[in-house]
Amino acid sequence: MVVYLIGAGPGNPELITLKAVKALNKADVVIYDRLANEKILEHAGEAKLIYVGKKAGEHYKSQDEINQIIINEAKDTSNNIIVRLKGGDPFVFGRGGEEILSLISEGIKFEVIPGVTSAIGVPTSLGLPVTHRGVATSFTVVTGHEDPTKNRKQVKWDYTADTIIVLMGIGKMKENTSEIMKYRDSKTPVCVIENGTLPNEKTIFGTLGDIGDKDINTPAILIVGNVIDVFKEIKGIK
Amino acid sequence: MVVYLIGAGPGNPELITLKAVKALNKADVVIYDRLANEKILEHAGEAKLIYVGKKAGEHYKSQDEINQIIINEAKDTSNNIIVRLKGGDPFVFGRGGEEILSLISEGIKFEVIPGVTSAIGVPTSLGLPVTHRGVATSFTVVTGHEDPTKNRKQVKWDYTADTIIVLMGIGKMKENTSEIMKYRDSKTPVCVIENGTLPNEKTIFGTLGDIGDKDINTPAILIVGNVIDVFKEIKGIK
Repeated sequence: MVVYLIGAGPGNPELITLKAVKALNKADVVIYDRLANEKILEHAGEAKLIYVGKKAGEHYKSQDEINQIIINEAKDTSNNIIVRLKGGDPFVFGRGGEEILSLISEGIKFEVIPGVTSAIGVPTSLGLPVTHRGVATSFTVVTGHEDPTKNRKQVKWDYTADTIIVLMGIGKMKENTSEIMKYRDSKTPVCVIENGTLPNEKTIFGTLGDIGDKDINTPAILIVGNVIDVFKEIKGIK
Repeated sequence: MVVYLIGAGPGNPELITLKAVKALNKADVVIYDRLANEKILEHAGEAKLIYVGKKAGEHYKSQDEINQIIINEAKDTSNNIIVRLKGGDPFVFGRGGEEILSLISEGIKFEVIPGVTSAIGVPTSLGLPVTHRGVATSFTVVTGHEDPTKNRKQVKWDYTADTIIVLMGIGKMKENTSEIMKYRDSKTPVCVIENGTLPNEKTIFGTLGDIGDKDINTPAILIVGNVIDVFKEIKGIK
């Protein structure tokens, strides 16, 4: 018996790894979060599917409840292969570490299969280079939806990397860009990508100063820095 | 005719995406860098293989020469699908942006297929969470082998993200960790992973202050920050 903690990639169902597909093919149970595209579940064949993501209008499961569901399935002797499936990569704001620690506390064997994180896979698939010689030799990935149990005042946005990639920050766009503008010019070019790698993908250009006034739908990621000018050159945008 | 710019993933040949495999299956030509594992080329079947990475004792190709090789293959009317294959993700220090700009200047059609970057895929596959609730809500990825044509003095290591991931920095380990120690305590836990996701993978623990004295072989990545303590807890290391 083994629990595979798997990253499903950024959304396009072909951006999952061969290793993840092999694990899904063998799975007896798949415990999954909200995925950008549920076609990925087709690899699981007849496996039992347990959804633990958010549902509109319903109580959604706490991390402790999710941990317990995984443990219960792992302890069910009729299960041999348990897959815990998450969007993107399981350790990029995926709380995979917490789930592994809970498995360890019960002596349950696990393996982690990385996925293409949306932080990189979404811009890359569009032709937006997060690093570029002479423009960006570093990038920072940060959650724009800070843990509400932490003291919000402790979160500083003084990231010094050339490119900043903000995940899950659309609901707090104005607040986050105001924070970044304490350290960067309001004219810094930015780009928002909605529904990255999916058919309804949409790219919105702007600056730190004006992006907060634009109409943006989730899920989306924000990318900040001069690589956006390289991306405009690639797209032929003046 | 189309040029696919593809990320091969971090090394383990099963950590390539389905989309990349499909493109390789159809390829007439594959122009590839040094890969952590050449088994990935098996997906290309009978395609012509052109190696443009470094070779011991030989002149290695400049970026301009590589760009020209891709353009020549794209202009050869006997080729329909050209694959440009890189390790990891093509835009994480892969110079993919430069190659795309050179294709655009020739009016050549392209598509980019992201890959699992070693910056995230290597720690994730080991069970090392680069983000962890209450420990790290941001991470920075940086090249440890700065472009020698840039003024070295301009490179500051004052990255404020919770976790720092340094790629290609083994040859300059002491220099880089000395720079980071201007901003972080010398006792900050670090971890080096050699040959990540491959059978000869090796993990070396230390601190910012002592890791530069350890025997480390390339390819390897350095991870700095308190997530290393979470990783030790996961591995059962005191």
